[in-house]
Amino acid sequence: MFHEFTRETNMITKESIEVAHERIKPYIHHTPVLTSQSLNDIAGCEVYFKCENFQKVGAFKARGAMNAVLSLSQGERANGIATHSSGNHAQAIARAGKIMGIKAYIVMPRTAPAIKKQGVLGYGGEVFECEPTLAARESTLAEVIKKTGAIEIHPFNNYKVMEGQATAAKELLEEVGHLDFVLAPVGGGGLLSGTALAAKYFSPSTRVIAGEPALADDTFRSLQSGSIQPASSPTSIADGLLTSLGDKTFPIIRDNVKEVITVTDEEIVAAMRLIWERLKIIIEPSCAVPFAALLKDKVKFQNKKVGIILTGGNVDLNKIAKLFQ
Amino acid sequence: MFHEFTRETNMITKESIEVAHERIKPYIHHTPVLTSQSLNDIAGCEVYFKCENFQKVGAFKARGAMNAVLSLSQGERANGIATHSSGNHAQAIARAGKIMGIKAYIVMPRTAPAIKKQGVLGYGGEVFECEPTLAARESTLAEVIKKTGAIEIHPFNNYKVMEGQATAAKELLEEVGHLDFVLAPVGGGGLLSGTALAAKYFSPSTRVIAGEPALADDTFRSLQSGSIQPASSPTSIADGLLTSLGDKTFPIIRDNVKEVITVTDEEIVAAMRLIWERLKIIIEPSCAVPFAALLKDKVKFQNKKVGIILTGGNVDLNKIAKLFQ
Repeated sequence: MFHEFTRETNMITKESIEVAHERIKPYIHHTPVLTSQSLNDIAGCEVYFKCENFQKVGAFKARGAMNAVLSLSQGERANGIATHSSGNHAQAIARAGKIMGIKAYIVMPRTAPAIKKQGVLGYGGEVFECEPTLAARESTLAEVIKKTGAIEIHPFNNYKVMEGQATAAKELLEEVGHLDFVLAPVGGGGLLSGTALAAKYFSPSTRVIAGEPALADDTFRSLQSGSIQPASSPTSIADGLLTSLGDKTFPIIRDNVKEVITVTDEEIVAAMRLIWERLKIIIEPSCAVPFAALLKDKVKFQNKKVGIILTGGNVDLNKIAKLFQ
Repeated sequence: MFHEFTRETNMITKESIEVAHERIKPYIHHTPVLTSQSLNDIAGCEVYFKCENFQKVGAFKARGAMNAVLSLSQGERANGIATHSSGNHAQAIARAGKIMGIKAYIVMPRTAPAIKKQGVLGYGGEVFECEPTLAARESTLAEVIKKTGAIEIHPFNNYKVMEGQATAAKELLEEVGHLDFVLAPVGGGGLLSGTALAAKYFSPSTRVIAGEPALADDTFRSLQSGSIQPASSPTSIADGLLTSLGDKTFPIIRDNVKEVITVTDEEIVAAMRLIWERLKIIIEPSCAVPFAALLKDKVKFQNKKVGIILTGGNVDLNKIAKLFQ
């Protein structure tokens, strides 16, 4: 088991992240890094926000999806690509399919925001709705793959996906220079494991910390117990972070992320509101989790330089507006 | 009268705008220009959004205020600066006062958004509330000036303010190159006259068009009649555009802006929503007026290159959220 793990994580190297970055560059935005004096004053530290809400499809998921699909052989992708996703990965895979001229089959929970479903359809993806449980998503996807012969691109438990997500933190570190901390949210752990590996390879003294909704704290519990603890019916407003770690993301996170800060939904909404009001940008609730974590544990970050990956900006305004009243 | 007018508009020259730009550069952001493929598809043209919502104080008003205050002699500013404003100019003057180390006295209608009042106080400005009418604003300001000896910096009817606002369009034209059109909103006309002069001097073939709320269409009526037609109790959601043209802004607009497109409040909210969702940025209702105008009169702009000055991003989320439900 130990050997298996060592061999597998070694698949993502400094060089492989560099190659992935070159591979996807023509298809992704180099997103801006924003700062705000008033948010720095509130946080008590220097915060550098890597704005993946401005990324293609409105989220960092464009990176991992593009890297995974570009890495397939022509034979592997001949029958198309398939995935299950609550939203942003779905759009990212649909877009990758469109760019590569292949079919994209997307299994989405029927509760996924309308704007995300519309996004998939807009890229020519085919949507299969299912119940909002991991079991339903997996069984529906298995049927779709059996029927079509498409190849699965898992939203996070896939080394090529993680490698692609790593390029967001790589860009942030290259642009800002040394950072004491980088904070990322954690759902299935694709972004977090990529971020942790990017820091390890490109800025070893940078500490990577995860922010997680208290209502979906499977990563917090998994790191405490030393084994994957699945989330049971998580319900957080941070709807992009309800999935549990996978067997490929967990070991990387266990070995490279020493701390998970959990935050309540109220703290998530308050942090989101601050970012909307002060940075003047639209971010998803999931996306506000790391900044909420920073504000919750301010002393740790006092006077430090902190990078935050803002993961996405696809919101259902009708739904989100209710949070601000 | 004709001579008076000629002499006065000649106060703003190509060179004076260039000097103003150098004067204010240390104190303002060079704001980004954003584009969106999906908004281009919707609009049927190439749209370049100049994002003054990311400007200092969250609005282009930082430019004009800074230019006006920096242009005062030491004697003129000895007793401080004063103005009346429904919001963004207020914060801009308060900030300019803080930077220059002088007192700033701000008369604000009691109906101004809370976030804008807080902004003024945050910069150390002193707020005097009054009834939300032009008469009340002017009489309260006169009292404040009488008591303090402060010098008035009018929100728009001031050549140094217009000159400062002109630098937003200057930056846009410098960055994007040739534009067929530049659209700006019009309230009192400070931004619009500055934008029109910037186009005249730096890109003579660019046509400047104004967007105006139908519920506050004094500029539309003024250009039709050939004389200033004040707005009577305007009530548009675009609360930054309720003021009427001044005797200094009107002649410049009359001579350099050939068209005003008016839009309903429903069209303003729809345009604002599109920008929030697609550009992932927060803009004020007033700020969405030019894009609403473009969408209303699409044929005119078909396949053209169109610049839009997005003027500000200071919103009261509690209030604005209701629009999206």
